Formats: sequence, C-alpha cells, structure tokens
Amino acid sequence: MSDRFMNEINMTMMTDFYELTMANGYLETGMADNIACFDMFFRNIPDGGGFAIMAGLEQLIEYLKELHFTDEDINFLRGKGFFSERFLDYLKNFKLECDIWAVPEGTPIFPYEPIVTVKGPVIQAQFLETLILLMINHQSLIATKANRIVRSANGRAVMEFGTRRAHGTSAAAYGARAAYIAGCVGTACAVVDRDMGVPALGTMAHSWVQMYDSEYEAFKKYAEIYPTNCVLLVDTYNVLKSGVPNAIKVFKELNPPKKGIRIDSGDITYLTKQARKMLDEAGLTDCQICISNSLDEYLIREVLREGACIDSFGVGERLITAKSEPVFGGVYKLSALEKDGKMIPKIKISENVAKITNPGYKKLYRFYDKATNKALADVIALASEPVPCAEGYEIFNPNAVWKRKKLTNYRVEELQKQIFSGGKCVYESPSVNEIREYCAKQVDNLWPEILRFENPQEYYVDLSEELWKVKNELLEEHAAE
Amino acid sequence: MSDRFMNEINMTMMTDFYELTMANGYLETGMADNIACFDMFFRNIPDGGGFAIMAGLEQLIEYLKELHFTDEDINFLRGKGFFSERFLDYLKNFKLECDIWAVPEGTPIFPYEPIVTVKGPVIQAQFLETLILLMINHQSLIATKANRIVRSANGRAVMEFGTRRAHGTSAAAYGARAAYIAGCVGTACAVVDRDMGVPALGTMAHSWVQMYDSEYEAFKKYAEIYPTNCVLLVDTYNVLKSGVPNAIKVFKELNPPKKGIRIDSGDITYLTKQARKMLDEAGLTDCQICISNSLDEYLIREVLREGACIDSFGVGERLITAKSEPVFGGVYKLSALEKDGKMIPKIKISENVAKITNPGYKKLYRFYDKATNKALADVIALASEPVPCAEGYEIFNPNAVWKRKKLTNYRVEELQKQIFSGGKCVYESPSVNEIREYCAKQVDNLWPEILRFENPQEYYVDLSEELWKVKNELLEEHAAE
Repeated sequence: MSDRFMNEINMTMMTDFYELTMANGYLETGMADNIACFDMFFRNIPDGGGFAIMAGLEQLIEYLKELHFTDEDINFLRGKGFFSERFLDYLKNFKLECDIWAVPEGTPIFPYEPIVTVKGPVIQAQFLETLILLMINHQSLIATKANRIVRSANGRAVMEFGTRRAHGTSAAAYGARAAYIAGCVGTACAVVDRDMGVPALGTMAHSWVQMYDSEYEAFKKYAEIYPTNCVLLVDTYNVLKSGVPNAIKVFKELNPPKKGIRIDSGDITYLTKQARKMLDEAGLTDCQICISNSLDEYLIREVLREGACIDSFGVGERLITAKSEPVFGGVYKLSALEKDGKMIPKIKISENVAKITNPGYKKLYRFYDKATNKALADVIALASEPVPCAEGYEIFNPNAVWKRKKLTNYRVEELQKQIFSGGKCVYESPSVNEIREYCAKQVDNLWPEILRFENPQEYYVDLSEELWKVKNELLEEHAAE
Repeated sequence: MSDRFMNEINMTMMTDFYELTMANGYLETGMADNIACFDMFFRNIPDGGGFAIMAGLEQLIEYLKELHFTDEDINFLRGKGFFSERFLDYLKNFKLECDIWAVPEGTPIFPYEPIVTVKGPVIQAQFLETLILLMINHQSLIATKANRIVRSANGRAVMEFGTRRAHGTSAAAYGARAAYIAGCVGTACAVVDRDMGVPALGTMAHSWVQMYDSEYEAFKKYAEIYPTNCVLLVDTYNVLKSGVPNAIKVFKELNPPKKGIRIDSGDITYLTKQARKMLDEAGLTDCQICISNSLDEYLIREVLREGACIDSFGVGERLITAKSEPVFGGVYKLSALEKDGKMIPKIKISENVAKITNPGYKKLYRFYDKATNKALADVIALASEPVPCAEGYEIFNPNAVWKRKKLTNYRVEELQKQIFSGGKCVYESPSVNEIREYCAKQVDNLWPEILRFENPQEYYVDLSEELWKVKNELLEEHAAE
C-alpha cells in the first residue's frame, strides 16, 4: 500500500522546535544516551463517550521508518544559531535505536492507558514526541467520532463526505482512512481509494442539474451514463414537486440496476417519509434514499427516532473535523529512566490530580470474560511484573482503593504490540479492511453500557497493586520534600 | 519558497469522486467545453465574528500549477469501471484553460462575497471545486481564529503551539502559516520555518526538567547552553515554591541576555501576579512571562482583564483546530453559463432563503472612506457593469431595499485579482511577511464595531442595483414555473 502523503516526504522536521533544543541540550550535558521511557496517553474521551478508538499507527510507522535529517534540514538548523556542530553531526548520522510498543489500530482505548511506549536514548525518545502525538491524536480523534456516527446509523451505511471541510489535505486523506477503520463504508475522496484502498464513490452536485435545460434532462443523461450507480440529487429546485417526480420518471423509463435519490437540504424526516411513499407508490421499492446535510450522531439518532426513511448517510464536516470536540488531547510523558540497568520510575507532579502521571516502564492488559467474550477491565502494570494470568485476579480502583472486584473465568491479552526493536520495524500493519473488521469486533466486545452516547458506564482501568505502590511512594516522597 | 507539502505531491486526485463522474458526464453529453462560471463564497462567519480572513491562496495556486493526471491516476480510474476511454484520454492530455480570480490572502472577507471565481470549460471549472474549497476553507478558518486570538492579546506576542493537536501534517504546517499571516509572531513547528519562512522557536518540555537530579540543575544547564533564548518552564513541580525561585537563582548566577519563564498549568492570573512580584523583587524586571495552557481569545481576554502579568502567549490546540468552530463552510456554486458569447446568470433556489445564490459572472468592490481610510461597504456587481467610481454611489441592503445609504468621498478597490488567465498563472504570491503586514493594515481599516467578538456590527455587503434586478427576475421566473 502506498502512502504518498508520507513516503514521498521526509517528515523528520515536522516537529516542535523544542524537541531539537532539548536534543542538542542532552548531547551537550552528556545525557544523550541515557535510556528513557516515555508514554503517550490521553486524559479525556471526546464528547463524554465511553471509549476512544486507536488509529494512525500505520502512518506513524511509515514516518519512523523514514526518519532522517537531510543536508537541507541541517543547514537550516545551523542557520538558527542554537545548535552545536557536534549535534548537527549527530543528526547527519541519525539512526533510530528505540524500542517502541503501541496498541493496534482499531482497538478501544481508555484514559491514562499507555497507548504508545517508547524506550531508548533520551535524545531520540524525546524527539519522537511531536510526530507520535500528531499522528495518533488526529486519526484517533476521527475514528472515535466516526464510530459514534456509524453506531447512531444503526446498521445503515455511512459514507465519509468531508474532504472540502477538512483541515488540509492530510486531514482529508487520513481522516477518511480513520473513518473507514471506524466503520464508514467508504469516502467521497478519490485519492484515498487510489492510495489506501478505501472505496470512493460519488455521483453529482447541484451544478450538474443546473447545467441542463431541465432537471429531468439532467437526471436522464446521468442515468444513461451511470446505470450501475444512479443516485440522483433531488433538491436542486424542489424535492417533492420536482426532484422526486423527475427521478421516478427517469427510473421508470430506464430502470437502472442501482437506483437512489439523495436529499441534501430541508426537513429530513418529512421529506424522506414523503419521498419513500412516492417511490413505493411508483413501484420503486428498491430505490434507496441517501441523506447528507451537516449530519452527526445526534441528528442521525433523532431523525431515525422520528421514523425518517433513510437507507444511507453521507456525513461531511462534522465527522472530518470532529466538530463537537475537535481536539484529542494525547500527551507524551517521561515515565522512567534507566540507572545501572534498571528502569527507575519517574513521575510528573501537578496541583491538578488528573495531571499526575503513572510512573514506570509499563504494560497494558485487557481482561475478557471467557463466557461472553466481553471486555471486563484493563490493568496497567509494571513491565517487570508477571503477566496476570492466574485465576482470581483482583482489580481495584486506584482512586478509591476500597472498591475491589475479583475477576474469574477470564482470558487476558497484552494490548501493546512491539512495533520497533532497536530502531528496526518489527510489525506489519494489517490492511485497512482487516483493521476495520477488528475494530467492529472489539467494539462489539464492550458492554452496551460503555457504548452509550450520554453518561456511559466508566470502563475499569486499574493499576496493578505493585504499580499503585510505586506511584504512591513517589507521591509521598515529593510531598515530603 | 518551497512548499513541499504540495510541490512534491500531485494533488490532482485529492478530489471528491463526483467531480470525476460529472466531468466524464459532461464529456459524454457533449457539454464539456461549455463555458461556466463558479463562485466560492461562505455563508457564516465563525464564532459569530464580524469578518473572516482570506488565506490559502498560495497553496491553491501551487496546486493549480501542478494539475495533471498521471498514468497511475488514469489506471486507477479505469479500474473503477465508470469512465469512458475518451474521458481517460482527455485526462491524460489535461491542460488547465480556466480564468481564475481570487481575493488576496490577508483580506477581510464577508458572507456571500465571491472570494474565488472560476470561468472556463465546465469539465474543468467543476473539477476544481474540491481542492479550492479544501485549501481556502482550511487556512481561512485558522487565519480568522488566530486573528481573534491575536487581537485578544492586545499587543502581546502570540506564538502558534498546536502541531501535536493539528489534524495531520498539512493542518499543522499550513495552519501555522495561516496563524502567522493573521498576526501570530511565530510557531513551534520547525518545518514551517524551514519551508515557509515563519519563524520557529522553542525551549523545553517538562521532561527536560525531570531528566536532571534537580530543577535547579535542569535550569542551569539550559541557561548555559541557550543564554540568548533562556525561557524556563517553571511548573514541573511547583511554580511559586520551586520553579520561580530556581529560575531566579539561575538568572542571577548566569544573567542570560534573554530571560523568561513559561507557566503551562494552574491559575494563570494568580501565578503570574505572584511570579512577576518575585521576579521584580529579585531585580529581574527584564524577565518575561509566557503562558500556555489550552488558551483562546476568551481566556486571554479574561486573564488580562483580571490583571494577569503576561508578556506573551503560546496558543495550541484551540487555535490550530479552531476548536470553538472548526468548520469554515465555504461552498462553490455555478453562477453563469456562456451562451452565444454572453454570460447567462444561473441561480440555485432553496426553501432556505440563506441558501439562494447570487447569480451571474461578478466582481467585488470595496469602498474606503478617503478621510479615515476605513472600509465603508463592499458591493457585488455584475462583471459587465462599469466600476462604480462616480461620486455619490448609493448602496442598499439587498434584503431590505428601503435601507439605503449614499457613499461620498470614497475610493473604490476591486478586491479580486486575476490569478490564472487561460490556465496560466498570472499572479505572484506575496511573501508571508508581506501578507502578514497587509492583513494587519486591512484589519485596522475596519471600524472597531466590526472587530467586536460579541454582537459585531454587520458590515455592509450589498448588491449592485443591476445584480439585484437580475437575481429577482430569476427568482420570479422560478416561482412562476
């Protein structure tokens, strides 16, 4: 699969400048090769939902594979006057050495979980921050939003229609990819089909209808050329008085194998009910009705509740920008430093308890009920702990330790997969179709209470007893200082 | 200037699929060469503001210059099974022939104004829709938001800090460009400096402080390496008990020529007032205070009103995603068709009056008061009308025709510049610094009532008497049908 928005471009300099000043600084202070561990995690689920969906890993991997500094980069940096020649030499010969783990794309993820973990020389591990966050924040944001929209459509097809309102070309392309992973059936964006195998389709704009002397003529010409994808846009003049009658006339005359109408404005519930009635009365029960017009999960849920007659949705600006909450707030924090061959946990303190980090080089486990296959809880543990495979593992709420629950009859899965080992890629990204299928199954493994749009049940993400102790010791140490 | 996010990439296929089905359709129905005129315009100013700012034109021009279909594109399209070989041949030999006009970047723009106008064979003019909208919508969105944030800072510097929360790499890069045009002093994103001449800067993350045995040591090392850009992040442990005292100690010991502290969490007003007091008492009146933490124009206005002591702001996610309103709703509509050498106005009707288009091949004029240089009103006129340069031009509200006003002592400017003539680029984009300066002047030319964040005065955008008549005739014709 070709990813031309990444492969043909060296994205190494798509970084916050401070990653470079720090990298140069680590070299100058003799700390460059100290082994550090960083986690990417997020704190809040967008839209008050019960889970987010991991996405963007394939593009992150492509970026990491390509990581190198060109002469142009180095000359540019030299010109800034901040960097030592020794550092510029280091960049010239830069070779990634880090170990990196990540949660696979399409996996439901929850606040405070280490979704990407980087371990390596601090000069490198720090530098990766900006691009890791940029790639994973963006696609996870869109996948999370798109999955909400897809679920609101209750089995009906949702197409991604947002290219024109996306925040630039990569937002359009990778947003469409993330939307597909999360359950959309395709996109309007042609390049995403060509390069990423996400099916693209489209029919006509209002201007097509305006170009001909009559709406009827415009429809008829279209049906003659595209009988296998004959979805007619019926709201250029008047949906019920003109658009639907002209569509019916053309469908009856030409009987194209795929018939559909699209309505892009007006009262969706009223118009689709009337249009359905008119189509059915004309014997066109096989004609599908597609709706598009600033939709999101709330509007879709509402018109379906009202009994609107809709077969598919085209969703644009509110999906591709995640309009209701366009920020996925993933952060990247130092969690441990190696000393004498051991990883020493590090913590970031804050007045704001929510901003205190989980220290240590860690692993993430998901427990599934063997009987129902539903996800029961996730546990964050120190990497040095054994995998919690014994029967009767007790989880507890790290913020309310008296809340305890014994898990039985479970199977446990380590969620992070290693993607780089000593700077070499050791992971092959699944195809978008495989990720899409996996995502649907994973979401299906969540209890319905987690899937709610409003006031979802909070999924259990607990710390292992050992990690909890380490964290509390560090907090008490800092408080004592 | 190099624009590697565009130049090295053929963006021709970054298009909605329906542009291709329509293009093929126009060829099949013999209409491909009919000359059509399309306008891009928008309907609502984000955030209820009084104006938006045009941006993204330079990237649009680069795209248009590069427009061509590769063999890979054509093979991909052939595989879709929708397109005739004649059409694929047409694409293979595609050569842009359109005339294109646009409002220059940095110009305040208002609803319903034709900010881009395309005239050419419909097979081409239609095809340009997606990329025109994508490019102009994105950067205009960010420029408009950034200008609000810059104005709220009341002369203090605002840096763009949002790369990690941007919607992908081009959102980060071109968002930073748009923010700079609109008045930001620079960006954290290194590549934007290298490729677009927008100054990038940065210092340290919390992890830098955590890497050393003490905060004092971390600050001291930094000050030794970067005396000319010594902005210390003081909130890793405790701003007032640890961060500021350690910064003061280091500044007194090393006296770096540029001293600053950055606070990234906590109560901004309280912390900056206390920090300012501590710095001043230590004789460090030249030490600047920088704030960053999910800021926007409302928070900035509020902390300044409370008397927070701040010299500069770093603004990230809420700027780069235009969080409060992340959609700039520009549309692209057919406005005229050539018949026997004359442009025949076309209108798109809608139940929703706000969605009715302004017909005709048009020009856009801005009237300035000669005495104050303030912008008085814009007038949209038919291209065939003479430039309204006579003294005493009467404007009127197209939705309330009895509201009339005679303009006197004005100078008038045609706002659209021609950027392509017969498919050839005839416009040289100014530098980002020139655009930034022009933008500041143009915003300064607006009355303060237009600049308000809440309930701004509505700027006059009127139709010429002739255009108004044409529009009403078309509406009456349609109503009569």
